[in-house]
Amino acid sequence: ETQSQKCPTRPSTHTEPVRASEYPRKNAEILSGQYGTNLLLIGAALMLAIAHHDPAVREEHLLSFASCLMLLQLLWMMWYILVRERQDNTRTERDVHATTCWIRGGLTLLALLSLIMDAFRIGYYVGYRSCVSAVLGVFPVIHATHTIAQVQFLWFHIKDVIKCYETFERFGVIHAVFTNLLLWCSGVMSEAEHFLNNHKRRLSALGYQNLTIEHSEPNCNCTTSTCSMFSSSLYYLYPFNIEYHIFVSALLFVMWKNIGRNLDLSSNRKRKVTKTQGLTLGPILGLLALASTIGILVVYITHVEKSLQMRQSAISMFYIYGIVMLVVMCCAGASGLVIYRVNHKPLDTSKNPSRQLDTELLFSSSIGSWFMSWCSVVAVLSTHSRPPYRWTNLIYSLLIVLEKYVQNLFIIESLYRQQENAERENQELPAAPEIFSVTSSLAPPYNGIINRAYETPERVCVAMETEQEESGQMYRCPRKPSEVPMGVGTKGEEAPNIKRQILKNIAVLLIMCNISLWILPAFGCRPQYDNGLEQETFGFSIWTTVLNFAIPLNLFYRMHSVASLFEVFRRV
Amino acid sequence: ETQSQKCPTRPSTHTEPVRASEYPRKNAEILSGQYGTNLLLIGAALMLAIAHHDPAVREEHLLSFASCLMLLQLLWMMWYILVRERQDNTRTERDVHATTCWIRGGLTLLALLSLIMDAFRIGYYVGYRSCVSAVLGVFPVIHATHTIAQVQFLWFHIKDVIKCYETFERFGVIHAVFTNLLLWCSGVMSEAEHFLNNHKRRLSALGYQNLTIEHSEPNCNCTTSTCSMFSSSLYYLYPFNIEYHIFVSALLFVMWKNIGRNLDLSSNRKRKVTKTQGLTLGPILGLLALASTIGILVVYITHVEKSLQMRQSAISMFYIYGIVMLVVMCCAGASGLVIYRVNHKPLDTSKNPSRQLDTELLFSSSIGSWFMSWCSVVAVLSTHSRPPYRWTNLIYSLLIVLEKYVQNLFIIESLYRQQENAERENQELPAAPEIFSVTSSLAPPYNGIINRAYETPERVCVAMETEQEESGQMYRCPRKPSEVPMGVGTKGEEAPNIKRQILKNIAVLLIMCNISLWILPAFGCRPQYDNGLEQETFGFSIWTTVLNFAIPLNLFYRMHSVASLFEVFRRV
Repeated sequence: ETQSQKCPTRPSTHTEPVRASEYPRKNAEILSGQYGTNLLLIGAALMLAIAHHDPAVREEHLLSFASCLMLLQLLWMMWYILVRERQDNTRTERDVHATTCWIRGGLTLLALLSLIMDAFRIGYYVGYRSCVSAVLGVFPVIHATHTIAQVQFLWFHIKDVIKCYETFERFGVIHAVFTNLLLWCSGVMSEAEHFLNNHKRRLSALGYQNLTIEHSEPNCNCTTSTCSMFSSSLYYLYPFNIEYHIFVSALLFVMWKNIGRNLDLSSNRKRKVTKTQGLTLGPILGLLALASTIGILVVYITHVEKSLQMRQSAISMFYIYGIVMLVVMCCAGASGLVIYRVNHKPLDTSKNPSRQLDTELLFSSSIGSWFMSWCSVVAVLSTHSRPPYRWTNLIYSLLIVLEKYVQNLFIIESLYRQQENAERENQELPAAPEIFSVTSSLAPPYNGIINRAYETPERVCVAMETEQEESGQMYRCPRKPSEVPMGVGTKGEEAPNIKRQILKNIAVLLIMCNISLWILPAFGCRPQYDNGLEQETFGFSIWTTVLNFAIPLNLFYRMHSVASLFEVFRRV
Repeated sequence: ETQSQKCPTRPSTHTEPVRASEYPRKNAEILSGQYGTNLLLIGAALMLAIAHHDPAVREEHLLSFASCLMLLQLLWMMWYILVRERQDNTRTERDVHATTCWIRGGLTLLALLSLIMDAFRIGYYVGYRSCVSAVLGVFPVIHATHTIAQVQFLWFHIKDVIKCYETFERFGVIHAVFTNLLLWCSGVMSEAEHFLNNHKRRLSALGYQNLTIEHSEPNCNCTTSTCSMFSSSLYYLYPFNIEYHIFVSALLFVMWKNIGRNLDLSSNRKRKVTKTQGLTLGPILGLLALASTIGILVVYITHVEKSLQMRQSAISMFYIYGIVMLVVMCCAGASGLVIYRVNHKPLDTSKNPSRQLDTELLFSSSIGSWFMSWCSVVAVLSTHSRPPYRWTNLIYSLLIVLEKYVQNLFIIESLYRQQENAERENQELPAAPEIFSVTSSLAPPYNGIINRAYETPERVCVAMETEQEESGQMYRCPRKPSEVPMGVGTKGEEAPNIKRQILKNIAVLLIMCNISLWILPAFGCRPQYDNGLEQETFGFSIWTTVLNFAIPLNLFYRMHSVASLFEVFRRV
């Protein structure tokens, strides 16, 4: 039944514009993938021209382009929702791995912060409306509409596995992916430019260098009293807006990969959340890390603008703090891997585009930070100046490489191992029955359970059937709670697996540490700009280019690893 | 029998150091992939420092690093060959899709040119040995040894599907992949620097700009009379050396993907080459394109260094020539796609890492050139200067985007469609028997053939069995030539399929055109440097950075598409 390529019945007025069976899937992928890539490249070319401050290409042009793309995406989403509404809802397959409730919740939060940002932008435009382009006012309005519509789309349609109108829907989804990627790039560019200007201003104030600072202030006075408040608050909201767009594009990309896919329904089941017992050391250490991070952030930002002495001590402090954090993270990740080596299990190799993408994103977003670290290593080894933080910088950089190496291994192995654990809990089909020998004797035979459920299809069962699109459990009607043998139900609570507890603690600790390491660069603690070592070896322009590429990737890495680790935590 | 994960019998002195079944495959992939990526990043960091002309990091450091990597790879290859020699040869599975004879032949040719380059480098070192680092002499010696050993490895082992010692061999193969990638990057950097210096010298001579040119000449006089000959000839050999390394790393990457893979032997058969009848229009047009390209190259290079008038006319000529070429290529690719749409066939979706990589490389190496084109479009639309080639540049850039778009679609669809054609020819099992109704009646029943072959296992059959590792045909003993019914054997010659002939002509034409478009930038015809439009919009440093990234990718794209199109040509 999963191989059905036919479209569900639809109104006869729609004579299928594209016959999915006619056009090969691989071609449709390439066709739409190339379209999306070119959209992004046009945007990137515009951004480069803006970065050069060419008078003929201004920010308005980029914003108009992005607005057009957003409007197109809005139209497509409306079309999609309208067509879906008309269809028979129960026939839409859903990929339960595509996203989770808490990811959608987190995205909604980020979207709310983006909306606040749009409000600030509108306020800023109102203040300066006499001398700035109308595009600066239209863009945030469209962006806000786009954000609201997109969050609604994410909540209700992101798990859809599209089976008909494939080619057209492919274009729509990939358009949405690359629109969000473009908005991400644009956010990253604005943020980097703002940071770089601040950095240059600071250097000039210290008398280090004579750099030209680009002023982007409009040529007229603000008519309201809140303009400067709006423009300065904007930069605190940028990190959230940036993360919002890149996460949305990852989710939409999974949706795109799912188009035309035949789900393997046996592995397409949602898993139960395990109990959170024995969580002490991980959260405590994690909270400690988070608290110290905020302290470090405040001290760093206030000290780095002061005298050379203060600046150097702030940078040294950062590196020592970083080394401690990274050593803890390496140890945590390594012990997780050791635990996995001790109880060997085969990995789950079933197809799962969402997990595949997670793996690739972790790996590829590490590259930015690795590159930055190796540049630091080269700089430290080749430099002739002797700042106090020279060797701590070296150790810190090497630990960054090691920590990402270990953490990636840990996360990826966790994501690929989950299957068996989950099966054991969910289906009560122990893979190694001898371990569960006490409970097995208590539990009735499995086929008996299933037969009973089919013989007496009760209310619970019917309710589950209507909710099938949400949970993806279509194949067996769940046992009623009263039917669950007590032995199985309470075993996990009475004798919790010590290894699993350790793994849960490790996951919580790593989540907190990754949040810490996201907060620092996101809110302006970037010693790579301030320590001067790399700048000496690579020159100002090469090094800032490297940082402008590596820091956004690193920020994305931290956020993405938090999301993945949360998944690990829930499923261990 | 294909699922056997056990290692073949080996001397008992080797107590398996890594038990493949113990360590999960996904982890081994990530572990080795991360290792290789970091190797490349270290090299890239060194290159950036060299590009800044930092006195503490010199080319010697990069060359020493690359030499160490090559030595390590040599040791690993020796170990691999020794271990394999001891093993039972017939037990090694081979992936017939991994490479073809003509790819290996082409690589051998490129390797020979690389050896000549090494000889030149040694000669250059001998001339200047009193004042340059000994590394400059050691590096070409190691590189030559490495090239010879690697070509030998490619000929005899690249198709191996490694099933035991997995983790260690994974590291060895990925080390080889990234060593070659590093050598590629280093070649690209030297070539780009050389070109940029030439360009700056030309601009200075024309009085355009006052740019500092980096002199890399040693501080002493050459002791032989041939130094300048060596150093100037080097740059004509660079393009070949660069292509050699990137192709080798692609092949080795396929070998890495194949490690631990269970081959689907039913699709792992080599295919026969079809006859080359009716090839007239494609080769003629292609040769015309190739001849005109060489003319354009000579005219361009001689004219562009002259007065502004000559320069502008040379650039205009290039664009007009390019537009004609690209229109022809677009039409060819589009008609190929139309032919595919007319006779609809399902695509082959069996797993094939080699083909998968081909697809991804085509797609991702297009990005460089697309980005360059979109930058040109932005520049043309925003510029205020009015050179005569302004609008031809715009049309040329848009056609570049369109041509790659269409060509990628054509190549990828061809690669994914081949299966059925080949099956029809190879196995004589027509998918649509009614077309072959005449021949089917002539041919004996298939099971009869197979039975007869098993009943009378003759010389041909035994010979094929021993060659099984070369051809991969393990499953059926081929019919003797005399047994082939004449109807099947001559049908293809008597009534050649007109569509197939058109496709073959298209493939030949596209091959020639892609070679033409490789020759031009590889030998110095790069109007993107000379036309000045983009430089005005993006600034000198941003635009040269874009070109340094995009032109090598574009060169690789052209070479790679030639290889893929040749594959298409053989299998249509």
